[in-house]
Amino acid sequence: MKESALQVLFLGGVGEIGKNMTALEYGNDIMLIDSGSCFPSDSMPGIDLVIPDVQYLLNNKQKIRGIVLTHGHEDHIGAIPYVLRELNVPVYATKLTLMLVENKLKEHRLPDVNLNCVKPGTKVTLGAFEVEFINVNHSIAGAVALSIQTPVGTVFHSGDFKIDNTPVAGEPMDLGRIAEIGKKGVLLMLAESTNVERPGYTMSERVVGQTLDGIFADNLFRRLFIATFASYVHRLQQIIDLAKKYNRKIAFSGRSMINVADAAYKIGELKFSQEEIIDIERIKNVPDKNLVILCTGSQGEPMSALTRMASGEFNHVKVGKNDTVILSASPIPGNEKSVYGVINNLYQLGAEVIYESLEKVHVSGHACQEELKLLHSLLKPKFFIPVHGEYRHLKKHALLAESMGIKPGCALIAQIGSRVEVTAKTIKLGESFAAGVKLVDGYSTEGDDVVLRDRRRLAEEGLIIAAVTLTMGSGEIYGTPELISKGFVAEDMERVMVEAKAAVVSALLQADVKGDVEEAKAIVCRVLKNFIYRRTKQSPMILPVVMEV
Amino acid sequence: MKESALQVLFLGGVGEIGKNMTALEYGNDIMLIDSGSCFPSDSMPGIDLVIPDVQYLLNNKQKIRGIVLTHGHEDHIGAIPYVLRELNVPVYATKLTLMLVENKLKEHRLPDVNLNCVKPGTKVTLGAFEVEFINVNHSIAGAVALSIQTPVGTVFHSGDFKIDNTPVAGEPMDLGRIAEIGKKGVLLMLAESTNVERPGYTMSERVVGQTLDGIFADNLFRRLFIATFASYVHRLQQIIDLAKKYNRKIAFSGRSMINVADAAYKIGELKFSQEEIIDIERIKNVPDKNLVILCTGSQGEPMSALTRMASGEFNHVKVGKNDTVILSASPIPGNEKSVYGVINNLYQLGAEVIYESLEKVHVSGHACQEELKLLHSLLKPKFFIPVHGEYRHLKKHALLAESMGIKPGCALIAQIGSRVEVTAKTIKLGESFAAGVKLVDGYSTEGDDVVLRDRRRLAEEGLIIAAVTLTMGSGEIYGTPELISKGFVAEDMERVMVEAKAAVVSALLQADVKGDVEEAKAIVCRVLKNFIYRRTKQSPMILPVVMEV
Repeated sequence: MKESALQVLFLGGVGEIGKNMTALEYGNDIMLIDSGSCFPSDSMPGIDLVIPDVQYLLNNKQKIRGIVLTHGHEDHIGAIPYVLRELNVPVYATKLTLMLVENKLKEHRLPDVNLNCVKPGTKVTLGAFEVEFINVNHSIAGAVALSIQTPVGTVFHSGDFKIDNTPVAGEPMDLGRIAEIGKKGVLLMLAESTNVERPGYTMSERVVGQTLDGIFADNLFRRLFIATFASYVHRLQQIIDLAKKYNRKIAFSGRSMINVADAAYKIGELKFSQEEIIDIERIKNVPDKNLVILCTGSQGEPMSALTRMASGEFNHVKVGKNDTVILSASPIPGNEKSVYGVINNLYQLGAEVIYESLEKVHVSGHACQEELKLLHSLLKPKFFIPVHGEYRHLKKHALLAESMGIKPGCALIAQIGSRVEVTAKTIKLGESFAAGVKLVDGYSTEGDDVVLRDRRRLAEEGLIIAAVTLTMGSGEIYGTPELISKGFVAEDMERVMVEAKAAVVSALLQADVKGDVEEAKAIVCRVLKNFIYRRTKQSPMILPVVMEV
Repeated sequence: MKESALQVLFLGGVGEIGKNMTALEYGNDIMLIDSGSCFPSDSMPGIDLVIPDVQYLLNNKQKIRGIVLTHGHEDHIGAIPYVLRELNVPVYATKLTLMLVENKLKEHRLPDVNLNCVKPGTKVTLGAFEVEFINVNHSIAGAVALSIQTPVGTVFHSGDFKIDNTPVAGEPMDLGRIAEIGKKGVLLMLAESTNVERPGYTMSERVVGQTLDGIFADNLFRRLFIATFASYVHRLQQIIDLAKKYNRKIAFSGRSMINVADAAYKIGELKFSQEEIIDIERIKNVPDKNLVILCTGSQGEPMSALTRMASGEFNHVKVGKNDTVILSASPIPGNEKSVYGVINNLYQLGAEVIYESLEKVHVSGHACQEELKLLHSLLKPKFFIPVHGEYRHLKKHALLAESMGIKPGCALIAQIGSRVEVTAKTIKLGESFAAGVKLVDGYSTEGDDVVLRDRRRLAEEGLIIAAVTLTMGSGEIYGTPELISKGFVAEDMERVMVEAKAAVVSALLQADVKGDVEEAKAIVCRVLKNFIYRRTKQSPMILPVVMEV
């Protein structure tokens, strides 16, 4: 590790690399890019949230100059309260992103944070780094790419982006400024890879508006429901505009939908007049043809508005034959079954349902191959690190970069914990550092592998508790052992348990443990495990409780 | 329920309706169609297999004339050993289906079964029913539709099908015979709905061969791996033919691949000469350019050949830079994450990977909209019940049927447990019967809701065992209680547990339970539950063990 090299450090994340948090380090300065959370994988039962492990940053606390946020999605800001609790450093973000961060900080009761609102086109200095914010398009307003002047050269970070030449609000991606930066020379680019497998261009958000317009026109006398992410502010705007055009009132439903709509309205990102809005509790007197319900639940989340409406558990709304429900979102991988469950329930209530596999009611927020190529072509970076993707995406993005002129060896794929060292002339993997994730479960961030292994085992096989009492001194068994099972069942269960108890007693008598509690536990475990497996071909967790009296 | 009505009974299944098992009942005769298993849903941890509950059939054992199988996929034959164990009735199926059933029966040691091999174009009589088997195309050889003469009229059941006018082996779907049957008049059709959301036609299996040919040609000097379902016998045949064309030997890998290839070869469904095959343990001396490894694992199954190769745990094969791996299958919904995990691992080992989102290396085995319309148009049934799909599919298929001329009220959507009553003039839902599923876990089919609820709870929250000993008579606490936790962790865990123990002791002292074991348990539960939730916002399962000495 040379003092004169810029270091790019990859923190946190499950499955995807370089998404939740990245650090740039040079000499005595560290700047952080994003601070996101991700959802737990299937092998983490009971975990609420996964956040980056920031031990490396805690060890280098005095060097950190600030956190820069590219946009307000959870995978980029979700860890902010947890990180700021341990590292109270300044935060820089655009208006909507900052507003979403403020909501989080309120919820976590962290008032004393240094928050700074930045505008696209402006710059901030963080120690050795000068960061310029550049407007990009994405599925949330206020997304930016970063052009970072460092002592070794310019680093460009794309954030999450697409190129939308006809955005619903705000400006198209600032390709002019990006071209200028490219002309001056870019040392290193980090660019997102989500859609690198998709050829062509991502469609404009405006396409969704056109599809929805058609659906409004086809359903003049029916009540409309539209479920989408609350953070798709531009999509909300299109729906609000259509509601006005078709003389319908809007009812927001779902906590995050109401919160985000309210906040986005206050900062001017969402435009409507208050008389176009009606409270969900007062929709009873509005005719079906004059109403749109705009709600959460496009991912089939169990507690969301749409999921509860579909299962008939929502107080103010009963879905029926005169309703058309539009799911204006793609199922995130892993959510397919929940989403289709909601759709099935809606059909069973008699509603019409329109979703992505039927109509163009959603477009991606990420660049496809031709947009990625355009970015490479404008910036012509010397070095390239693909980010935001699984290994397969990063690999394909590296190949795409090579096809665009990146020299062999100049595109590098990082892992969580990778330290990439960059000078004006070289790029290489340095010594990796301790990185990974912390699991958040209730108040605790202490979940670890042993706990998860136990949980998985318990879920798969259940458990049997064997309580045995030994007489102190003589070490004889006092009374009969007690067996308690949970999450375990076998054919002819009662007899299996009686025989298991007998097996335990006989083994203990034979062993003559003489009050050695640990040995007694070991014997109980071994005997029960073997007996149960032989009889049932199952392996519940055996928990011996041996007491001495 | 009238004696003169035909009854269609829908048994078993999770999510999909009319797939795993259907019964036709008329007077004193019952015939069964298929006997499949399905995979457990996410809410069934530790369950190996889900099979239909056949209690209704056990109550009507003497009426059952036989089981007819449409094809050899698990969701149509997987429950056969469990069902035959309780209901030993004759089974009718085509050659390959029967061979797969025989393998299952051997595994389950059920030799005394009445198995009958049938050919497309032939008929069997089962009590009041005369069943004709009709050749269809599907992703497994030997698939048939059923035309069933019943006392009230002809019932047509499509089974799983597609129309492949250029099949790799065997005949195209017998549309000629279907047209004849249609001309004579069909009272009721049951048809599959898997791809009802997809417009157009499903591509011919031959397209996969063309894509693979191109991949063979582009990878002349590289070693090739192709992962697919063992039961795609026609796909195996195409790969074997290409291997011959490009002078490569075939190595089969994975237990089911070896078993199915061997059996299909023996009955003539798969054609190759033994010298084209090489044992996977002897591939070391074969140059990369002369080898194709044909393996299981296209769904990322944990123990499959490809998954183990990708994680470097397969003895005879090390994947590296000169390897191209083709996944010739779609991820089944729910398997996406495992499949992409395997792909990521393969890329990390340096291999090239080709999968469905990149090239046409897979086609569906199910009919799309135009094929379904053709079937409706040829058969013109009076009544229609869409089957094989979630509710949303069945609903869309009913709409499609109406667009093809089915009269309003003549298309009916059934549920698991529905009894549909059909006469020559009417169709209606009769009184439903007790149906559902049995969960298979190890040897046992006794898994029930309580066990699953416990397992889910244990997986989400873990558990704490509180062991307390009371002195008989006085009811005082003997020694200190012991707390054991599994799958549970909290910040500052040690102190939480010490304080929890103190809370239990203090509550027991205060309550003065006087040796009432049940009351002591209740107190321990309540106190611990409240204390742990207050301190950690978690709710582990509390298991009190109270012993008296």
